[in-house]
Amino acid sequence: MRVFGIDCGTNCTGYGVVDVHYGARETSLVAVAAGGLKLAKNQPLPERLAYIYTELTALLQFHRPEVVAVEGVFYSVNAKSALKLGHVRGVALLAAAMQGLPVAEYAPLTIKSAVVGYGLAQKEQVQFMVARLLRLDHAPEPADAADALAIAICHVHTAQTLTLQAESRA
Amino acid sequence: MRVFGIDCGTNCTGYGVVDVHYGARETSLVAVAAGGLKLAKNQPLPERLAYIYTELTALLQFHRPEVVAVEGVFYSVNAKSALKLGHVRGVALLAAAMQGLPVAEYAPLTIKSAVVGYGLAQKEQVQFMVARLLRLDHAPEPADAADALAIAICHVHTAQTLTLQAESRA
Repeated sequence: MRVFGIDCGTNCTGYGVVDVHYGARETSLVAVAAGGLKLAKNQPLPERLAYIYTELTALLQFHRPEVVAVEGVFYSVNAKSALKLGHVRGVALLAAAMQGLPVAEYAPLTIKSAVVGYGLAQKEQVQFMVARLLRLDHAPEPADAADALAIAICHVHTAQTLTLQAESRA
Repeated sequence: MRVFGIDCGTNCTGYGVVDVHYGARETSLVAVAAGGLKLAKNQPLPERLAYIYTELTALLQFHRPEVVAVEGVFYSVNAKSALKLGHVRGVALLAAAMQGLPVAEYAPLTIKSAVVGYGLAQKEQVQFMVARLLRLDHAPEPADAADALAIAICHVHTAQTLTLQAESRA
């Protein structure tokens, strides 16, 4: 299974592609790609959105994931930030839909719990654990790329749990 | 000049296309098209955004406007509504940018002032004045279509004012 995680942000939108290999004894995770789409602050908003959409579409077409995972909606931010984030998030969800890919959403607490084991973990802890779980030499940069990988890992764990639950019921 | 107005909304996104004919004695406005893109509530958000994007892109390619006009950002709504609206707005701005069209933004007060002459006008007053200015037999339906036409008319008026100001300075 290949999961494409997106961490939507108004300054930088991170992405991370994770492959899951199901072995006889263990399941291994492999980081395929990760990066951040930085937005030029002096560019008009429609052009910035076009940049994110074009880049995400190219990445989705290149990596051909089975599913896209994003951070769920959280309402603690103010209306101004929420609207700004909404623009980017709408374009990211659109890019997935236009490629015919299903989108899974996870709450920030769920993502941190899945990766660090603690819902209120700091950004550095997430980066550290993402590097460890994916056996990377160093923490992914920018932090948004690490967050996107964390979202992808969260999806893998959740998908596994759902499969195990289904098997135990069968 | 042809202006494509978009009134972004989470339940229904209105659009309105207005042509401006500059005569020797007066400037006349003609409504070319108007309508509303209603969103199915039970559909997943990425699919709803794909619907808006696909429809807006087809409409922009068909009507070939010179400019797209949208309502500017207003922060009186709460964070939850702002994020929802942001998704739709991001996709609308993207559709314009992907067609290489410039986007003009107008504050709600400016739009109502341009059409009704009063910034705090009611929705019905906007519908009535839009019908009058465009010499329509009846008010455009849905109300979102009338709002989109109002945004397009606001752009025409503002563009005229800017031209007149530039001429008086010359």
